[in-house]
Amino acid sequence: MKYTNNYKPTLSDESILQVIIQERESVGYYNLVHQDTTQFKEYANGVQQKSIVVIGIGGSTLGTYAIYKYLKHSKILKKRLFFLETTDPIDIESKLDGIDLDDTLFIVISKSGTTVETISIFKYIHSLIKINANNCVVITEFDSKLNSYAKVNGMKTFEIPKDVGGRFSVFSAVGLVPLAIVGIDIDALLKGAKEVYSSFFSQGKDYKNIMRKARFFVESKNSFNINVVFSYSSRLEGFNKWYVQLWGESLGKIDINASRQGLTPVGLIGPIDQHSFLQLIVEGKRDKTVTIIKVNDFANDLKIPAVELEGLEELNYLNNREFSSLINMQADATVEAINNLDDIPCDVITIDDVSESAIASLMYEYELLTSVCGQFLSINTYNQPGVESGKIILKNKLKG
Amino acid sequence: MKYTNNYKPTLSDESILQVIIQERESVGYYNLVHQDTTQFKEYANGVQQKSIVVIGIGGSTLGTYAIYKYLKHSKILKKRLFFLETTDPIDIESKLDGIDLDDTLFIVISKSGTTVETISIFKYIHSLIKINANNCVVITEFDSKLNSYAKVNGMKTFEIPKDVGGRFSVFSAVGLVPLAIVGIDIDALLKGAKEVYSSFFSQGKDYKNIMRKARFFVESKNSFNINVVFSYSSRLEGFNKWYVQLWGESLGKIDINASRQGLTPVGLIGPIDQHSFLQLIVEGKRDKTVTIIKVNDFANDLKIPAVELEGLEELNYLNNREFSSLINMQADATVEAINNLDDIPCDVITIDDVSESAIASLMYEYELLTSVCGQFLSINTYNQPGVESGKIILKNKLKG
Repeated sequence: MKYTNNYKPTLSDESILQVIIQERESVGYYNLVHQDTTQFKEYANGVQQKSIVVIGIGGSTLGTYAIYKYLKHSKILKKRLFFLETTDPIDIESKLDGIDLDDTLFIVISKSGTTVETISIFKYIHSLIKINANNCVVITEFDSKLNSYAKVNGMKTFEIPKDVGGRFSVFSAVGLVPLAIVGIDIDALLKGAKEVYSSFFSQGKDYKNIMRKARFFVESKNSFNINVVFSYSSRLEGFNKWYVQLWGESLGKIDINASRQGLTPVGLIGPIDQHSFLQLIVEGKRDKTVTIIKVNDFANDLKIPAVELEGLEELNYLNNREFSSLINMQADATVEAINNLDDIPCDVITIDDVSESAIASLMYEYELLTSVCGQFLSINTYNQPGVESGKIILKNKLKG
Repeated sequence: MKYTNNYKPTLSDESILQVIIQERESVGYYNLVHQDTTQFKEYANGVQQKSIVVIGIGGSTLGTYAIYKYLKHSKILKKRLFFLETTDPIDIESKLDGIDLDDTLFIVISKSGTTVETISIFKYIHSLIKINANNCVVITEFDSKLNSYAKVNGMKTFEIPKDVGGRFSVFSAVGLVPLAIVGIDIDALLKGAKEVYSSFFSQGKDYKNIMRKARFFVESKNSFNINVVFSYSSRLEGFNKWYVQLWGESLGKIDINASRQGLTPVGLIGPIDQHSFLQLIVEGKRDKTVTIIKVNDFANDLKIPAVELEGLEELNYLNNREFSSLINMQADATVEAINNLDDIPCDVITIDDVSESAIASLMYEYELLTSVCGQFLSINTYNQPGVESGKIILKNKLKG
C-alpha cells in the first residue's frame, strides 16, 4: 500500500499558532505593542486644555473608555475625559452641559473619516465654538476625507493604520493619544499588553490559556452559544462594553462553509448581577459559558466599621471586613456555586491590580483570544460586512 | 362513539389570560397601579435635603435608576439622586466624593432586610456621618430585621408588600418614594402603567401584542434562545439593565417537567451597537430575536448646523437635520436591514416621548410580558432559588 494526501493539520494548537504568526504580518494590532510612543507623549505634554472631549463611536471610543473608567478614580489625573458618541440629542446636550468649551480640546476620531454620527456631532460643535488647530486634533486613516479636512485647517493629525481595525485599535493613537493627555501612563499600558504578547508567542501561560479556552468555546459552540462575563468591579463596566463589541463584531460571521457562526457575548457586573442573572445561569438552559473576572489587589482599605445595628446583630460578622475582601468573596462564592453544579463551563481571570498594565494585559488577552477563536471558527475575524447594509440604508434615507 | 377527557386548554391566549387573572390575586405587582400615592407625596414634600442616596442592590435600585436615567435631563428636578449598589470600594468612594453628606437623605432599601451588600454599605455610611431619623428612611418588608432597626431608631419606614418581588417592585414604595422626592411625577408614572394594565386586561392592543410576542418567544425558544433589545436612546440604558435583570431572573427556571428554561436577555444601545453587535445579528447564528425600542418624540430640536467642512462636502446631506430625526432614521435603517434578511424575528416598540407615563408604560408592558412568558413556559416566574446557593456560600465564607 501507498498513501498520499494534502491534509494540513488545521486545528492543532501549533498549527493555529502558525496561522496567527502569518496573520501578524497583515493584521496590524498585534504589533502595536512595539510602538514608539514618543510622538504621543510629546503632543500630550503640550495640551493646555483642562477638558478633553473625544468625538467618535464604537471602536473609536469603547477601548479608551474601558481604560479610563477602570483607572480614573484610583489615579490623580490632570484632566477630565468625555465621550460624545451617540446621536441622542438629550445625551449630547447633557454631556456638554458643564464642560467649559473654551477650555476644551476636541479629539475627532473616525477610521473611515466619514462616520455619519461622528461628523454630525462634530458639525454641531461648530455651532457652539470656533473650531481650529488650537482646540481640535484628528485621528483617522492617512488618506481619509477627514484627514484632508484637518490638513486644510492646519490641524494636528494622528494616523490609524489601515491594517488596524476599529475594534482592535485601543493601543493605537485612537486610545493612546487621549489617555496620554489625561495623564495615564501609556508606556505602562503597552508594557502590560506586551507581556501577554510575549507570553503568547513564546507559548507561555497566556498561549496555553487562550488555546484551551478558544478550543473549548468553539468545540462546544453548538451547546454553549453564549459567553457571559461577570466582572467583579464596577469599573470594569467599560471593559464589558468593549468586550461585547469586540466579540460580537469579530466572531459573528459566515464561515468558509457558508455556515453562520457566532458566540454571543454578555457583559455583567458581578456584585450586582449575581443577584439576578445568576438565576438564569444556575437554573436556565445550559447554553452559557461563564467567565469571572476578579481584581486581586484593589489597593484600597475601605472597611465595614464595627457598627452594631439594633435588630441586625446577626450581620455583625461583616464588621471590620474590607470591601475589597467582600467583593472577592462574592466572586469566589459565585464560582463555587457554579462549580458545585458541575455542568456549567466556567473560567476565572484574576487581574493583578488597578493599574495600566493590568487592564492592558486583560484587553490584549481578549484581543488574542478573539483572533484565535476566529481561526478555530474558520472565519474572517477582521471584517464587518453585516453592519454595512444598515449604513447604506441610512445614507439613502438621509439623502432622500 | 363517546368521548371524555380532562384536558384543559392551557396555551390559548384566553386560558393564559385566565391564569394571569387568577395570579393577580396573589402576585402583588399587578395591582400597584391602583395605589393611593398620598403618603409618598406627603413624605416627599417634606424632604429638605438636596442629595438623595439610595442604598440597595438589584431589584431595590434598577427600576428607580431606569426611570431616573430616562427622565433626569429632560425635566427640571429639584434634587439629585445617587445609588450605592456595589461593594467595589473604589466605586463607593468615588460616588460619595462630591456629595455633601450633611445635606443628604439616605434611603435604605432591602426587601428581606438582611441583604449583605446593602447592610455593609449602610454600616460604612455610619462611619462617615451620624445616621438618625432626620437623614434616613427605610423601605423593607413590615416584619424584617431592618424594619426593627428603623423602629428602634424612630425612622420613617415604607413597606414592600410580601407579594411584590424585588424585580417587580419599581411601582411600589421602592421606586415611588425616591422618585417622588427628586420631583418626578409619580401619579403620571402610575397612569402610564395603568393604561397598559387596562389595555391588557380588557384584551386591547397591549394584550394582543404581549400574547403574540410571548407565544412566539416561547414557541421558538429552541431556535431563538436570546432576545436582544436595541434601545435607540442612550437614556434607556437603565431600562436595559432593568430588563436584563427582570427577564433573566424571572424566566431562567426549571419548568414543571424538570426541564431547564430560559431566554437570555441582551440590552444594547442602538446608535452605538448597530456599529458592532449588529454584525453578529446579521451574519451570525440565527439564535436571536430582536426588539427595537424607539422614542417617537424627543421634544428636542437640537440640529446639525449647515456647516461645510472642507473635504467632507459629501456629508452635507446631514446639514439642518435634527438629531432626533437622525437617531430615529438609524433605528429605521437597522429594522430595514434586519427585515430585508427575512429570517430574523424582529419587533419594534415606539414609546411616545420622554415622559413619566411613557417610560412607565414600557416597563409595565415588560412586566406583563415577563409574567405571560412565564405562564407559557410553565415555570414559577416569581421565585429565584438559583441565586440562593451563592448567598449561602458567601455567608459561610464571611462567618468562617
